[in-house]
Amino acid sequence: MLNICLIGAGRIGKVHAMAIESVPGARISHVVDPYPEGAAALAAQLNANVLSEEEAFASADIDAYIIASSTDTHSPLLSRCAAVEKPVFCEKPIDLDYDRAAACVQAVNEAEITCMLGFNRRFDPGFAQLKEQLQSGAIGKLETLIITSRDPEPPPVEYINVSGGLFRDMMIHDFDMARWLLDEEPTRIYATGSVMVDPAIGEAGDIDTASVTLSTASGAIAIITNSRRANYGYDQRIEAFGAGGMLQANNNLENNVVRSGAEGIIGAKPQFFFLERYADAYRIELTRFVEALQGNTTPPTTADDGLKALALADAAKRSLDSGMPVDL
Amino acid sequence: MLNICLIGAGRIGKVHAMAIESVPGARISHVVDPYPEGAAALAAQLNANVLSEEEAFASADIDAYIIASSTDTHSPLLSRCAAVEKPVFCEKPIDLDYDRAAACVQAVNEAEITCMLGFNRRFDPGFAQLKEQLQSGAIGKLETLIITSRDPEPPPVEYINVSGGLFRDMMIHDFDMARWLLDEEPTRIYATGSVMVDPAIGEAGDIDTASVTLSTASGAIAIITNSRRANYGYDQRIEAFGAGGMLQANNNLENNVVRSGAEGIIGAKPQFFFLERYADAYRIELTRFVEALQGNTTPPTTADDGLKALALADAAKRSLDSGMPVDL
Amino acid sequence: MLNICLIGAGRIGKVHAMAIESVPGARISHVVDPYPEGAAALAAQLNANVLSEEEAFASADIDAYIIASSTDTHSPLLSRCAAVEKPVFCEKPIDLDYDRAAACVQAVNEAEITCMLGFNRRFDPGFAQLKEQLQSGAIGKLETLIITSRDPEPPPVEYINVSGGLFRDMMIHDFDMARWLLDEEPTRIYATGSVMVDPAIGEAGDIDTASVTLSTASGAIAIITNSRRANYGYDQRIEAFGAGGMLQANNNLENNVVRSGAEGIIGAKPQFFFLERYADAYRIELTRFVEALQGNTTPPTTADDGLKALALADAAKRSLDSGMPVDL
Amino acid sequence: MLNICLIGAGRIGKVHAMAIESVPGARISHVVDPYPEGAAALAAQLNANVLSEEEAFASADIDAYIIASSTDTHSPLLSRCAAVEKPVFCEKPIDLDYDRAAACVQAVNEAEITCMLGFNRRFDPGFAQLKEQLQSGAIGKLETLIITSRDPEPPPVEYINVSGGLFRDMMIHDFDMARWLLDEEPTRIYATGSVMVDPAIGEAGDIDTASVTLSTASGAIAIITNSRRANYGYDQRIEAFGAGGMLQANNNLENNVVRSGAEGIIGAKPQFFFLERYADAYRIELTRFVEALQGNTTPPTTADDGLKALALADAAKRSLDSGMPVDL
Repeated sequence: MLNICLIGAGRIGKVHAMAIESVPGARISHVVDPYPEGAAALAAQLNANVLSEEEAFASADIDAYIIASSTDTHSPLLSRCAAVEKPVFCEKPIDLDYDRAAACVQAVNEAEITCMLGFNRRFDPGFAQLKEQLQSGAIGKLETLIITSRDPEPPPVEYINVSGGLFRDMMIHDFDMARWLLDEEPTRIYATGSVMVDPAIGEAGDIDTASVTLSTASGAIAIITNSRRANYGYDQRIEAFGAGGMLQANNNLENNVVRSGAEGIIGAKPQFFFLERYADAYRIELTRFVEALQGNTTPPTTADDGLKALALADAAKRSLDSGMPVDL
Repeated sequence: MLNICLIGAGRIGKVHAMAIESVPGARISHVVDPYPEGAAALAAQLNANVLSEEEAFASADIDAYIIASSTDTHSPLLSRCAAVEKPVFCEKPIDLDYDRAAACVQAVNEAEITCMLGFNRRFDPGFAQLKEQLQSGAIGKLETLIITSRDPEPPPVEYINVSGGLFRDMMIHDFDMARWLLDEEPTRIYATGSVMVDPAIGEAGDIDTASVTLSTASGAIAIITNSRRANYGYDQRIEAFGAGGMLQANNNLENNVVRSGAEGIIGAKPQFFFLERYADAYRIELTRFVEALQGNTTPPTTADDGLKALALADAAKRSLDSGMPVDL
Repeated sequence: MLNICLIGAGRIGKVHAMAIESVPGARISHVVDPYPEGAAALAAQLNANVLSEEEAFASADIDAYIIASSTDTHSPLLSRCAAVEKPVFCEKPIDLDYDRAAACVQAVNEAEITCMLGFNRRFDPGFAQLKEQLQSGAIGKLETLIITSRDPEPPPVEYINVSGGLFRDMMIHDFDMARWLLDEEPTRIYATGSVMVDPAIGEAGDIDTASVTLSTASGAIAIITNSRRANYGYDQRIEAFGAGGMLQANNNLENNVVRSGAEGIIGAKPQFFFLERYADAYRIELTRFVEALQGNTTPPTTADDGLKALALADAAKRSLDSGMPVDL
Repeated sequence: MLNICLIGAGRIGKVHAMAIESVPGARISHVVDPYPEGAAALAAQLNANVLSEEEAFASADIDAYIIASSTDTHSPLLSRCAAVEKPVFCEKPIDLDYDRAAACVQAVNEAEITCMLGFNRRFDPGFAQLKEQLQSGAIGKLETLIITSRDPEPPPVEYINVSGGLFRDMMIHDFDMARWLLDEEPTRIYATGSVMVDPAIGEAGDIDTASVTLSTASGAIAIITNSRRANYGYDQRIEAFGAGGMLQANNNLENNVVRSGAEGIIGAKPQFFFLERYADAYRIELTRFVEALQGNTTPPTTADDGLKALALADAAKRSLDSGMPVDL
């Protein structure tokens, strides 16, 4: 039985804890959180022990860590995992600052620890099915990739202020999906963006509507469009086009009931937000992490993936600011 | 150039006239209608001549007839076509009375004239595609057939009074579709029905909601459901199921635009009624009639088809009245 | 914490055990099964104790029972629950013999115990959504109901021999759905059926393809069609039609990826069979059972529901055998 | 009755001739084509007269012209229409050279003749429905527009050589759609492209796969993606996103039949190419032209629209060549 220490007992920490509950051969044995009540409540539910951060990295009873605390703590905690040479699953991003992230990834790589980054969308059954068909040659060489990602509603401006901006906070997922599906590194990026959803986001120096074009050496083109708001729910779609046809991964709907009436034919909306849409993905993601621990293998998403997605986000920001494409 | 005499310048007569306009090698040369103004207006539009019924059957200039007049005139007019030994396209039904219809069909068959009956649905591109796939073995032996047929709105009760009732007036189309798709004659029929749409229809001795079950010697089962009203438009669907899978011919929608909003995902309704839904079918139907004339071949729907559908309608009525299934 | 004794450690027993794992306030404390290895293995996984049937009904530590053993044991076990006056969740059917089932239900009712019957489909999120919209008046008075139910593959003939036949074994679920959605008892039933899937089923005296028509006092018509085999997976759909429109609960697909290629536009099949399709339903069903226990309320499905569905199945069999409709 | 002279008796000329046949109040009275046989055959079918180009512009019997001849003749013919001060419908583009096109448009505007340009997609019922909903405020302010346009198969390289290149020949339609739907002029354009379909296209100095990003003053973003080949047919879709939701105009399929089988759920492909997909649009387009003539009003697409789309195509080419965005 693998004993896993969960650092961060907030919303996403609870999601990961529940996922581990369903994975045979692993359990959350310890919980760390700056808020003692939160840590205690979750630990009680999981039949786990509460530790301080210092205790957590000193304990010999812990086999691996899950980092689900606030973004600014990710790189210091990853570095501690490297220092104690223990496996770690870490929520994205590694760090909002590329240099700090790079230093952290170097430490992780030098320590040769298993490190999996929480790019949950790769584990979504629909997207995984699209990737599988792509790899099996169902549409031949990928030529055009269109990723649509729209949140149901914008975060409060306080969140925007510490988020690192749309590219590092929101589109970073899409950059990872693009790299994963293109199966080659983009060579050029062009970003455009605007403030259409909430003027307060603009006043905070960010954008809420954006589009990015990625070019690759093979001639493939990837388009990503983002909006911080979609009144019909969480819009998460991917379209891949090639010589052999087109693959489309569509939204998961709230239900499969369709009503025909005088107003038209009305189906349900997409599932509301990431907790609903990616519930399966979160579970599968941690199953893969535990499998990597059990098999002592490289997990499907690595710290390098996190760094490369961050590099794309930074380049997108430079393109947006300059109005010019950026060579990568 | 085939000269065709159109008898009946009403709504469906105009549909057939327009269809002939688009068929190479044929034209409406003459128009007959008891209302002289209607005949004259349509004839002017078609650059055709107006004739009386007597003149129409005496004229040597006419190669074929299209009967699109009121139902009670169909069998006398068909008999006149048989008498003058000229080809005829006739709107369904032949006659609301089975014996009169049978006598008329006998006359037609003895005269050995080309006689095509207006079962327009066989020429609907979607239904024709379903039939083609069925014949090509796409789902193997047909086991279950479900035909759904709902009109957008009920006719006025005056129409109900002269219609012959739901089975002879409305479900007759579905009986023909069932015979065509089953490719074997039903051996047993069970009908049930009720008045759910308009009490006046019940007061007129008819029903507005019905279901029929047909059994065949091979074990195939066909279900037909009808309603005189669907608030979302003309609902015309067929589902065929067999060992190799399922074929579904869905409705044609008013357009392909889908709106996603806070209320859900909203698509357009089915096309409103038969003139819209079967516009292509009416055109193709008369193309097939002209082709049969040009090739001197049997048309795809015959007077016998009309008689057999009428026999099913009559049996359905007996089943409804007795509450018992009827062997055929 | 409610201690629940699971009787039957086979496939469906495990499904129920996993469902209880996710329900707060309840646990499987004891497992009973004639096969000691099966009981022990499941008990170990659940951290529960193995009991004999005798011990299980003698134990004071048990708050409720789940009956997931073979069909022939259902009514004796239900009677024991009545005798010890403890709540029970029982898989359908109560008994293949109506009189024995009726006697058992009488015992249950007289004991005034909470008894919930496993009509899992009522808890399917799609069907529940359809029911909710129906109740909210979304389509007005229900006029026509069409229930389609096709298994992916036929059971072995050994199963057929002890199943009670298609109507009692398979269509019983659809009879319950029809009663639930119609919200009134059918007054007349007409059944037709044939052997299209496997001649061995016919040799065993059963059918594998069937259609039933139910009529009600209000004039509503319900059609159920069944097949023991669908090569595209588990086909479970409901269509409800009324003055205000139509509701359709469609199949859950294996995934939401669509491929467009030279052969057409290809989407995934329905989920394979009941364990996949009704995974959510099984979980929700037992959540409702525990809620009924906690609130001491009547559960959403009762022993009476089981008896009434069985009465419809028996009437369907009589109709099939006689070729005549049966008044209820 | 308006007498219209058709210049160009090729494929698209015939499409326009058939469209005029169905428009009340207008007819093709004269046909002009450098190939006498083609002109004569079409004229015979239309009951029209053959003229030389000189005769066509000298004739007093002609009320309007339709220019459907080769691209290089468009601007000289338009100038002749301006010179004789008669209305004209002209296939796009005006000219592959912007300066010549601009001079021609100036002549047309100074002559104050009715001049309609053949941007047929505006008349597609699906796209028109999307535009109508957009204008009615169904999704509020347009924020993101995604236009997908893929031909079923690439043209021969001989065509590529005289086409003016992908932006002027193919994407010009999408530029017009973007301008029409955005309802504001783009201020910046960024283009990327590659050769993925046919190396011969690359050798001819053109691309076959492209993406363009348009920005506007209001912050709206429009994305256009093109491919010269889609093995599943003509892919013509538009997605418009705004604060109030999303509108999607989907492809028209060859038919509405869906087959469920062991391989999945298989629907028909999009209609093959522009003649099938835009058959209705071509008919409606010329109906609008005749209405503009009858009402002496400005037609819905003008010579200026043609010039502005050409300016966008030229800017896209400059962006592609320089790798930089171009301000408009």
